[in-house]
Amino acid sequence: MDAANGLAPVFDAVFRCGLLDLLRWRRDVRRFCAAAVPASVFDELLDIACLAPSVGLSQPWRFVTVDDRRRRAAVRASFVRCNQQAFASQAPERAAAYARLKLAGLDDAPIQFAVFAVPGPRRGHGLGRRTMPETTAYSTVIAVHTLWLAARAAGLGLGWVSILDPSEVKAALEVPPDWIFIGYFCLGYPTDESDAPELERAGWEHRRGADAVRLRR
Amino acid sequence: MDAANGLAPVFDAVFRCGLLDLLRWRRDVRRFCAAAVPASVFDELLDIACLAPSVGLSQPWRFVTVDDRRRRAAVRASFVRCNQQAFASQAPERAAAYARLKLAGLDDAPIQFAVFAVPGPRRGHGLGRRTMPETTAYSTVIAVHTLWLAARAAGLGLGWVSILDPSEVKAALEVPPDWIFIGYFCLGYPTDESDAPELERAGWEHRRGADAVRLRR
Repeated sequence: MDAANGLAPVFDAVFRCGLLDLLRWRRDVRRFCAAAVPASVFDELLDIACLAPSVGLSQPWRFVTVDDRRRRAAVRASFVRCNQQAFASQAPERAAAYARLKLAGLDDAPIQFAVFAVPGPRRGHGLGRRTMPETTAYSTVIAVHTLWLAARAAGLGLGWVSILDPSEVKAALEVPPDWIFIGYFCLGYPTDESDAPELERAGWEHRRGADAVRLRR
Repeated sequence: MDAANGLAPVFDAVFRCGLLDLLRWRRDVRRFCAAAVPASVFDELLDIACLAPSVGLSQPWRFVTVDDRRRRAAVRASFVRCNQQAFASQAPERAAAYARLKLAGLDDAPIQFAVFAVPGPRRGHGLGRRTMPETTAYSTVIAVHTLWLAARAAGLGLGWVSILDPSEVKAALEVPPDWIFIGYFCLGYPTDESDAPELERAGWEHRRGADAVRLRR
């Protein structure tokens, strides 16, 4: 440790228990209260998201807040279309279960935003993404996750909507067609809280621990 | 709030300050102490990573720990090749700065592992990834970030190596060729700590806040 480390925070057992709680109680939220989220709270979350790591320090993320009713309706229409197609593609024995799931909070979430990655960011000077250009998208995903955790710690819920046609979303939001669509997000105060994923509570799928996904070489 | 919420944790101001510190002091680490990391500590980190959200609850991540010296050497050789090519492709005025950067801790990190996403996980029954199959990779990236934060809270540093040829890494580790390579990771106790990214301290790039990356629609 060098001298500059005198300022480094120490993460004690109490904090680490809290962090584990945060990770356990973070949910993908699809049911929101009507309560508005103060603009300053969301602004702060966006600033926190920008603390995320990024390849070459390129910060390739773009956050597009969506307030316009017609644009929100266009995104919702894309979701409905894609969800109908997804329903139609379900195995017969799972169709009823699929139909029962609530897969987005688009009608209720007070704050909605899309997230994109710029495909060839000038910032970062290309460092780290020559053989893996997908790292710009990956960096942006981490920015979303950073915001997600900070939101949950502030009592807010985030829902990630991926049942969308990326080209339709880009058209609805008038962003450059070469931007990489990462996801569309609903943010607000959740109607309930749980340490179990909604898909687990609905009987759709259950979680496994690390033993099932670890290999040794 | 329903009755079950009585158990939900409350994240108070002290915790939220700690979380902000964690996000500010998480670094991409390339300089490691020789001290070993107890196996139980890493096992716990992998279990925590599995708390990450995943599309359709598919948990598509695979963690491949790499202990074999020859396999580590093959990964290192891929890094050296790719890094030489990246150096050669730098603009002339940036080449000297690039050469000064330390971009991986492959020689020192006591724990090394690769992370992959399976391209078409059976788990999750396809939910949420029909129009966006890339969400399996995105879920896996969030699992990595979850581990990263928990590691930093435990005093450990993680370094993400993307200057690699994914096909060479897959061959070196003998994993299925259709797996999606997310990254190769070095884990250990860092030699120093900072709230500024190494690339910023080295003058390669600096960070911006949210104002520069926010659009309104």
